Amino acid sequence: MNGNKQSSFILKGDVIYSISANEMRTVPSGYVVCVKGKSRGVFEKLPQKYERLPLHDHSGKLIIPGLVDLHIHAPQYAFRGTGMDLELMEWLQQQTFPEESKYADLEYARKAYQIFADSMKKSATTHACIFATRHSQATEVLMDLMEQSGIVSYVGKVNMDREAPDPLRESSADASAADTRQWLAHVNGKYKRTMPILTPRFIPCCTPELLEQLHEIQTIYDLPVQSHLSENPNEVDFVRQLCPKSAFYGDAYDAFGLFGVNHQSGKPVKTIMAHCVYSTEEEIRRMKDNRVFVAHCPASNANLASGIAPIRKYLSLGIPTGLGSDVAGGHTESIFRAICDAVQVSKLYWRLIDQNQSPLTFCEAFFLATKGGGSFFGRAGSFEPDYDFSAVVLDDSLIPHPMKLSLPQRLERAAYGSLDLYGICAKYVSGDLIYEK
Amino acid sequence: MNGNKQSSFILKGDVIYSISANEMRTVPSGYVVCVKGKSRGVFEKLPQKYERLPLHDHSGKLIIPGLVDLHIHAPQYAFRGTGMDLELMEWLQQQTFPEESKYADLEYARKAYQIFADSMKKSATTHACIFATRHSQATEVLMDLMEQSGIVSYVGKVNMDREAPDPLRESSADASAADTRQWLAHVNGKYKRTMPILTPRFIPCCTPELLEQLHEIQTIYDLPVQSHLSENPNEVDFVRQLCPKSAFYGDAYDAFGLFGVNHQSGKPVKTIMAHCVYSTEEEIRRMKDNRVFVAHCPASNANLASGIAPIRKYLSLGIPTGLGSDVAGGHTESIFRAICDAVQVSKLYWRLIDQNQSPLTFCEAFFLATKGGGSFFGRAGSFEPDYDFSAVVLDDSLIPHPMKLSLPQRLERAAYGSLDLYGICAKYVSGDLIYEK
Repeated sequence: MNGNKQSSFILKGDVIYSISANEMRTVPSGYVVCVKGKSRGVFEKLPQKYERLPLHDHSGKLIIPGLVDLHIHAPQYAFRGTGMDLELMEWLQQQTFPEESKYADLEYARKAYQIFADSMKKSATTHACIFATRHSQATEVLMDLMEQSGIVSYVGKVNMDREAPDPLRESSADASAADTRQWLAHVNGKYKRTMPILTPRFIPCCTPELLEQLHEIQTIYDLPVQSHLSENPNEVDFVRQLCPKSAFYGDAYDAFGLFGVNHQSGKPVKTIMAHCVYSTEEEIRRMKDNRVFVAHCPASNANLASGIAPIRKYLSLGIPTGLGSDVAGGHTESIFRAICDAVQVSKLYWRLIDQNQSPLTFCEAFFLATKGGGSFFGRAGSFEPDYDFSAVVLDDSLIPHPMKLSLPQRLERAAYGSLDLYGICAKYVSGDLIYEK
Repeated sequence: MNGNKQSSFILKGDVIYSISANEMRTVPSGYVVCVKGKSRGVFEKLPQKYERLPLHDHSGKLIIPGLVDLHIHAPQYAFRGTGMDLELMEWLQQQTFPEESKYADLEYARKAYQIFADSMKKSATTHACIFATRHSQATEVLMDLMEQSGIVSYVGKVNMDREAPDPLRESSADASAADTRQWLAHVNGKYKRTMPILTPRFIPCCTPELLEQLHEIQTIYDLPVQSHLSENPNEVDFVRQLCPKSAFYGDAYDAFGLFGVNHQSGKPVKTIMAHCVYSTEEEIRRMKDNRVFVAHCPASNANLASGIAPIRKYLSLGIPTGLGSDVAGGHTESIFRAICDAVQVSKLYWRLIDQNQSPLTFCEAFFLATKGGGSFFGRAGSFEPDYDFSAVVLDDSLIPHPMKLSLPQRLERAAYGSLDLYGICAKYVSGDLIYEK
């Protein structure tokens, strides 16, 4: 990222962004104004006071806020799209664990993470919450590369001190915590756009002793938390066996202040839980009370035969929700793809599971991918005033069509047509042009 | 298509193709030999007798048989990827019927079908079964354009004399049949690669009188048949009301010799039925007995909230099955996408509907997309000797990765990574190079 490219400027083009889950604002031939990395809003006619700012003319092209990926595993990017016909346990044993073990080797980590960072840079994603591996040095390499990419991200060194094969399992809760503290001493505050996030892999991989230590670290550094929740029926059963005192899966995190609230300090703990396919009513209530974010990962939940998360329910309850690619349970980093997958599986949910839960609209899914997930980062994922200025410009003339289309139709077709794979012209993050074709 | 480009030649590259549903053959740096439009097989070392043939060197690239789309609606291509959050009836009323009505206008038809034909040419599809609209002249335009594209296709003028809005509904069974006969007089035998196929839209849109006439036409021309079957619970109920004497949905076609067998002549009638999501045991048995092909359209069945077809069951019973994009119920013509969707929804089927039906493997889904569907065209979809020589060359170096991959892994990743959208280097159909990047 080239810091000195950050500036104040105007984008001109066909603008579309979410106001709420049920409302998109469209401004054909509109002006999006960026002043010092923040949006000043979108205008049909350029206000006089901005007339002297340089104008980047993307007339005829689609301009949307950058997309937000609330859940992605950087080390799994290497094997994305392979072994997708395996089931979860085979997949972990044959693909995930052997690959993640390689990141003890910093040379390999650098090579693989460079590919990941380059791909993220070229994608439509501008904000991401990223799992690394348990290796703190490799995680720092990843953070260096993410910072260079220009994307805004939370990156977590993974904690895992049980139920994993030897090279990946940390030797003890103390060792895991010590490594985490050392990692934080290196990376906390080191970057402009890359922030650490506590990342206990999931309850089956973390002893209570480890969770207790992570709680202490959380209290000191006031860090956010990301993990997995209620993804798969067997996993949920296993957690029930491991934590007989927990009322439900999420309660096992909450007991250690790692589920939205630090009970010791009473402070909120920004928390994302990926999947939430099998969350019980009780768990859902706690998520709502504690303002826990749901990272909905529809592709992964299909690929790993997990099921379909009840996203309509989460939206109705006002639980903060966004989308996750979950590479490499998900096979692609494309959040456009996640938007379409979210709509598709919500239709199958309606048909196969519960006809009281209406399918998602495209408008709702686009909201999840932008402003919905973006709120984890503060004011991100929209062009409303004072939002972080992140934008993606798409050349949808590459999708030929015989008739006139509305802006929402053009956006929907761009998403369903995977235009992010070949039609991104420019990408801005926090006021910087980080990629241009 | 340039007929004189057809020749005898050799492709060199990393070859992979299906032998059966459970076996792929891989030949790294292999030679695929084409003699006069037919495959002579794949060789690790080039046999001496072929040494004088010109060699197209695609070393390092993937070479696969062309993909087969058993079900696609050409006029719906215009609105692909829009209105994907509508439900079936809204979608038909708001999108499909208004668009299809436009094809009475030959100028519009030519413009829209040109876009369709160009897109098909650039896709990985080499063989397709295509619905046009009820308009016979526009259907001839489409057939002209498909012939020019070089793709092998069956194209059907649609028959529909009830249950459709006025401009689309044909005025009577006689008028529909007369138009069909006139169309056939023009197009039958006119082309080298483009063949007519009888296309009653589906039972709700066709009176018994019309089906009787189509049966007569089928008998005279010995034509194949394509239609829709048991896609949606409401549709199945409606057919039950419309055809109280039919034992099941497919029986309503079979009564008129349009379901695999001409009962008058005793001859087979090559038949494809799209969807088959809600086929009963009785219907499935008849499909098996009559050798009716299933066109599995997983994206469409999700997009239109239809459900998930029991493809494992069809494979186990030996019912001939292939994949369909079903544009624009499906949002893309990509059969790579259909492969991945087929695996994904089979996992959701296993999880949500029946844990006795194991998910599809990638190998099986690739088979469906090539040799499985290809058998509708005779010997197509493989590089085995005497198969129609159709091939797609893919540059999968465009997908960066840090480690060595096997050929099946490379193919799987190419499919999951939608490489067909941006990584096709060359495409051959029946011995012709029809597209090159």
